[in-house]
Amino acid sequence: MNVGELEGRLSKAGQSHLLQFWDEISGQEQEELMLDLADMDFKEVGSFFQKAMETSDSIRQEKVDSRMGPVPREVLGSVTRDRECLRDWEKEGLRCIAQNKVAVLLLAGGQGTRLGVSYPKGMYDVGLPSHKTLFQIQAERILKLERLAKQQYNAKCCIPWYIMTSGRTMESTEEFFSRHNFFGLDKDNVIFFQQGMLPAMDFSGKIILEDKGKLSMAPDGNGGLYRALGTQKIIDDMEKRGISYIHVYCVDNILVKVADPTFIGFCVLKGADCGAKVVEKTNPTEAVGVVCKVDGCYQVVEYSEITLETAQRRSPDGRLMFNAGNVANHFFSLPFLRDIVNIHEPKLHHHVAQKKIPYVDTQGQIIKPDKPNGIKMEKFVFDIFQFAKTFVVYEVLREDEFSPLKNADSQDGKDNPTTARHALMSLHHRWVLNAGGHFIDENGTRVPAIPRWVQTSGPAGSVTPDATRNLKDGTDLPIKCEISPLVSYGGEGLDVLVRGREFRPTLVIDETGIHELVKNGL
Amino acid sequence: MNVGELEGRLSKAGQSHLLQFWDEISGQEQEELMLDLADMDFKEVGSFFQKAMETSDSIRQEKVDSRMGPVPREVLGSVTRDRECLRDWEKEGLRCIAQNKVAVLLLAGGQGTRLGVSYPKGMYDVGLPSHKTLFQIQAERILKLERLAKQQYNAKCCIPWYIMTSGRTMESTEEFFSRHNFFGLDKDNVIFFQQGMLPAMDFSGKIILEDKGKLSMAPDGNGGLYRALGTQKIIDDMEKRGISYIHVYCVDNILVKVADPTFIGFCVLKGADCGAKVVEKTNPTEAVGVVCKVDGCYQVVEYSEITLETAQRRSPDGRLMFNAGNVANHFFSLPFLRDIVNIHEPKLHHHVAQKKIPYVDTQGQIIKPDKPNGIKMEKFVFDIFQFAKTFVVYEVLREDEFSPLKNADSQDGKDNPTTARHALMSLHHRWVLNAGGHFIDENGTRVPAIPRWVQTSGPAGSVTPDATRNLKDGTDLPIKCEISPLVSYGGEGLDVLVRGREFRPTLVIDETGIHELVKNGL
Repeated sequence: MNVGELEGRLSKAGQSHLLQFWDEISGQEQEELMLDLADMDFKEVGSFFQKAMETSDSIRQEKVDSRMGPVPREVLGSVTRDRECLRDWEKEGLRCIAQNKVAVLLLAGGQGTRLGVSYPKGMYDVGLPSHKTLFQIQAERILKLERLAKQQYNAKCCIPWYIMTSGRTMESTEEFFSRHNFFGLDKDNVIFFQQGMLPAMDFSGKIILEDKGKLSMAPDGNGGLYRALGTQKIIDDMEKRGISYIHVYCVDNILVKVADPTFIGFCVLKGADCGAKVVEKTNPTEAVGVVCKVDGCYQVVEYSEITLETAQRRSPDGRLMFNAGNVANHFFSLPFLRDIVNIHEPKLHHHVAQKKIPYVDTQGQIIKPDKPNGIKMEKFVFDIFQFAKTFVVYEVLREDEFSPLKNADSQDGKDNPTTARHALMSLHHRWVLNAGGHFIDENGTRVPAIPRWVQTSGPAGSVTPDATRNLKDGTDLPIKCEISPLVSYGGEGLDVLVRGREFRPTLVIDETGIHELVKNGL
Repeated sequence: MNVGELEGRLSKAGQSHLLQFWDEISGQEQEELMLDLADMDFKEVGSFFQKAMETSDSIRQEKVDSRMGPVPREVLGSVTRDRECLRDWEKEGLRCIAQNKVAVLLLAGGQGTRLGVSYPKGMYDVGLPSHKTLFQIQAERILKLERLAKQQYNAKCCIPWYIMTSGRTMESTEEFFSRHNFFGLDKDNVIFFQQGMLPAMDFSGKIILEDKGKLSMAPDGNGGLYRALGTQKIIDDMEKRGISYIHVYCVDNILVKVADPTFIGFCVLKGADCGAKVVEKTNPTEAVGVVCKVDGCYQVVEYSEITLETAQRRSPDGRLMFNAGNVANHFFSLPFLRDIVNIHEPKLHHHVAQKKIPYVDTQGQIIKPDKPNGIKMEKFVFDIFQFAKTFVVYEVLREDEFSPLKNADSQDGKDNPTTARHALMSLHHRWVLNAGGHFIDENGTRVPAIPRWVQTSGPAGSVTPDATRNLKDGTDLPIKCEISPLVSYGGEGLDVLVRGREFRPTLVIDETGIHELVKNGL
């Protein structure tokens, strides 16, 4: 295609402004811009825009509150209320894994921008004693599950790991895995693919230039998954491998039970085609979407779509009525996923996110607007719940399974590296105690299960801020303890290692043995 | 008393070492030391020590787990499960207030050391738009309740406020109240008294010198309340005023509903002599004591006394079995309190807290030990629950009523000025929404009940950390909104002020009107 042809296409699409600086940009910039534009289906993008804006206009106005219903008890499995079923569910899940029927699918298209880094979040080191990254932790959980399934069912098996990246994270992600030898996984079972990108547009549908020769592009949301599964033949690959069940999750949750056999077993035994793992929302204004029924179909209602009145509603048992907090942890059967990809998802419209999008003005100046000046178009991974025939919900404990890494460390401590590190170490601390181990302090005294802060008397006989000092470097709470996923996936198998033994933190248990690291010596 | 007499007394008490530096200290130091020692009842202190150590030895060994039982449903009142009763309870509480039967008792003997300040915690300004201190907030809540009771029952009434300080905080507390004209309260109804002090002792019972001429002294725990109520004739004062019910609370909870009429009404209607307000503990390893029954008597089992196994136990409904989290918010009838002071409490032994206590060695050097070298003796305010004949528990919502200020701001953000400020503003934000008001952003768009973070697209089209920036200065979440207690005690009365109106944060509503403060202009 030459510039003339391109001009014609753009003119027809009402996007001629994209070439307004053509004569001012370098040859290489011209080439790159040409490539980007040649790839773009303007008709499709235009229709995405139109439908998204229509949907947004009609939906934004009416709150869904009046049409919302809670998750009925009969579709709910709960680790706290169905304890007697957990073993059976886990057994079934492991059986499926042993039969090579289970794959995991990781949503890792985002960068760690809010976290303050420019590389993919999965490459982040939250500062555990081992300094493992999120990717490594997840890889090792998969490895361990393969081994557990093999042990129990005497069958060598594998859990293929599909990793969705984006244009921005593909290269660095692949390079990272390759450099680390896929963390011990067979590289043929780690399959990378890319989600699509869409241009940001102003409110009239013009594509925004972020620089004279560069379009403003962004990934098409985690719901871009479904389109990518089709265009990149991932569904076909799954079929070829004989996969029946897929566990989809987000990269940022340090506690994620990748391919969680109990969750998978629950969904399989319930005959579900689609399932969502949730944690109980206990505070009405917590910023978490909730799984619920709207007009009889399951969906996630995002926290910003709900009125306070509805968020505050309670069941007779005192719990919030809409308390199934979405943690981006889903189960799909392959036939369901195939239908989604081929039939349902293409008909879904994009969501509109109004944003402040930097742009070049007609003078070629880069402007950072202080009001929203355009939109990004996104689909969400849970948009397709509505198509499920048998939808189930599985409730787990937040402290055991959910601690997302979203922000940089900050004063009010939400979802940051410190909280992620603490959540993991606190879980592993509990594993050791539940397996019969104990921790002792520097004086050899046993530390209670829930430790008190060590306090020192100050010169005035008062309690001085040892606690504060320790909190400040983020190391006081909880007991420092890290157990490699290669040693234990979910707390199992520790009895033989720790029962009746006393440990001084920092305790690290990995494939090479049990290590007590000297304080400050990390 | 002269030095000779003192030497004799000390020698008899086995505390002669306290005068070992007598000849090296100044005349003024001699005088002060003499005063301190003359005041001290060595026989009593010695018996405290002996009994505390015995109890500690015998109790520490055996966990109470096997003897613990949960709070039965029939003694529990719950704001989420007994919603239909709340109005009646509140009405009864207000009636008692209108009849001048209710007093509040504030435990404020501690300093803000862990918070990083050397003055009483109640004087702390957490950085609200109004910059009110904890003392002022609490004073205004009392004032407002008096007015509400007056309105509803057409009777001028007062709620006497008893404030327990310690040797360390008495002077500055009184001075602070006096300087602020008692925040509008009648100063005759604000009664200060002091809890006792006890010396720190080494493990053999010798009193510790923190300097050549200075004993290491500390307040005798918040349970020192009961002794102080007797020695300082507070019980008598209550009787003279015709008080029947007392609400006891700790200074550090910014959300505390001082003299909460619903809590008081619940306790009164249940015929309780003693009651505890609790919040649901939802995470087994949360550092909160739980109200439960031990051998049939109610008590608070502290988090460090419980095994993980017990902490993890659940009821069939999925809730933690021991989930009545103590928030230091208690109800007492006056007859009960009188019996406690006169009969029961004196028989209770002190708890032993092993501490690292700085001391002077025999060479006169000040040593900061790195292992516990001695003990402090304390009683706890809840030690006396066991004597209740009719004990009740009242469960409230954490987000509405409990946000203690304990630590300086830090990475993992627990119980610090930022979390306290956010908790209060989030509550007031909800009050405005529930009363029919709305918030709008800088573009005039209505902000959802649970606001999304404003996100800006960065140069690469990515989401840039506006949120992070805002979090860092601790001002992004929640909507900035503060309502003076003089306008609303618990969310009531706002309808007429806010219904159908739109506000831009920062919103401040106080007796002078409704103010929208310009951002950054605080």
